[in-house]
Amino acid sequence: MDEFALIRRYFEPLGRPRPEVRLGIGDDAALLALPPGSELCITTDTLVAGRHFAADAAAADVGWKALAVNLSDLAAMGAAPLAYTLALTLPEADETWLQGLAAGLDELAAQHDLALIGGDTTRGPLSLTLTAFGAVPAGRALRRQGAREGDLVCVTGTLGDAALALQLGAQAPPALRQRLHRPQPRLAAGQALRELASAGLDLSDGLAGDLAHLCRASGVGASVRADLLPTSAAFAAAAPAARHLALQVQGGDDYELCLTLPPERVEAATAACGLPLTVIGRITREPGVRFCTAAGEILPLAPHGYRHFT
Amino acid sequence: MDEFALIRRYFEPLGRPRPEVRLGIGDDAALLALPPGSELCITTDTLVAGRHFAADAAAADVGWKALAVNLSDLAAMGAAPLAYTLALTLPEADETWLQGLAAGLDELAAQHDLALIGGDTTRGPLSLTLTAFGAVPAGRALRRQGAREGDLVCVTGTLGDAALALQLGAQAPPALRQRLHRPQPRLAAGQALRELASAGLDLSDGLAGDLAHLCRASGVGASVRADLLPTSAAFAAAAPAARHLALQVQGGDDYELCLTLPPERVEAATAACGLPLTVIGRITREPGVRFCTAAGEILPLAPHGYRHFT
Repeated sequence: MDEFALIRRYFEPLGRPRPEVRLGIGDDAALLALPPGSELCITTDTLVAGRHFAADAAAADVGWKALAVNLSDLAAMGAAPLAYTLALTLPEADETWLQGLAAGLDELAAQHDLALIGGDTTRGPLSLTLTAFGAVPAGRALRRQGAREGDLVCVTGTLGDAALALQLGAQAPPALRQRLHRPQPRLAAGQALRELASAGLDLSDGLAGDLAHLCRASGVGASVRADLLPTSAAFAAAAPAARHLALQVQGGDDYELCLTLPPERVEAATAACGLPLTVIGRITREPGVRFCTAAGEILPLAPHGYRHFT
Repeated sequence: MDEFALIRRYFEPLGRPRPEVRLGIGDDAALLALPPGSELCITTDTLVAGRHFAADAAAADVGWKALAVNLSDLAAMGAAPLAYTLALTLPEADETWLQGLAAGLDELAAQHDLALIGGDTTRGPLSLTLTAFGAVPAGRALRRQGAREGDLVCVTGTLGDAALALQLGAQAPPALRQRLHRPQPRLAAGQALRELASAGLDLSDGLAGDLAHLCRASGVGASVRADLLPTSAAFAAAAPAARHLALQVQGGDDYELCLTLPPERVEAATAACGLPLTVIGRITREPGVRFCTAAGEILPLAPHGYRHFT
């Protein structure tokens, strides 16, 4: 099967019709029209075999996650997703693997009516780069900047599940494995909270490092109560107590949203979010992110979350 | 140097201000506004080390070419380029190499006032995936479909130079090496000919295969005169006569435009193009692409140009 046949068989069927997609797969480039009054929101993320997923990971999980991590960035901006492109580098055209990849991509794409509108297929060490496109009302995107002293720091869902699943490997219970391999981008929450939150981002590298990015962009700091971090039942049952904090704030791969809210908007945000939304701390004038106990004792942490090239 | 420092040092400076770029590098996603009445034109291409460029290629050439091949797709649609994203996978953070890459990218980007608006940096086997964005008046993009029987087939520039440079390696004269490593995307020509041509695409895999794509999309065929193929002086001097046709129609990497024009528009197109524009054949009702002599004798060719996974 050559490159063109492969695209026709596995990827053209993922080109879902949408009014914004004026031209999809099959020409030199794709054409996208934006809803009036919108800006286009663009994000790109690469997953490399052996680094972002195991070489023997289920292809459908790889497809799902590659799309999910990109959609999570759109969610963090409060954008409504429209479409995506896929640049796929493969050592060989393994049809079973390609079928699984396409199925995983389309399973998540179907939930949001997203169209695959183009891409590239090359031979080489296995990796995927997706670029995702969304629309957001002009000037209304949720940014990392904008958090102010006194705002409350909130997160959607629960933290640490994916990091624990990664650590437990084959021993991880299904609920945790699902969180690692099939993260649900918080798109509806991002759109619902866009007009309420003062700032926001998605949690991909761990709360400690990601919240520090938000704080630097906003010129503020944050104080977070470790005892308030939202915890799933599966995490509570399986995580060694001594590892709770590290897994929940430095583990990464949560793909939850972290938002800052003026206190008077927390009730409206909780009602609008559609997911558990937990207040975990507050924004401070003092820079830096501190994790502390209910009694105010500051807890020691390694300096940052996962980074490439350190 | 960690991932974030690397982005700040080498890539943030490539974020050229443009009115369409509402938000560039540094948040969860970028924001792009479109000129009124436009559609967004999107293309993505991956370059893998050892396949699309030699592992020891000059980093600046790699950067230039990675952007050029994407811009060539925008040129083929008649789009005006706006911005691009860069997903870079690197085995290690080699600063000399990164500096070269950034310089090569920006050298070409500066010619078109293009902004780098986002990306991702991951560790793994060396490859780059760029996604380029352009604007085209709504409904006016140049497509692969639209060619009609009797239209003339034209190409910009000359053919075969890059393929010959690849074959000659270190022996290739500078003019040919330049064509291989520093292709000039035909952006002005694409925009100038958008309203005149009936169909078009860019030549990346070789005229034989690429023109066959255009013909299939248009439901037609083509007859091309081998003796009319535009040839550079450097190519004529260095290519073995027996290899001319194969290099010019199957070699690939030309990054010229191939357009079809109603005969009465050829004069206007030649005047508007800003580059040599050569009539090389005509569109036929009979499907398939045939290369023939001035006397009409059909020349034998291998069935297609370069493809992955064959």
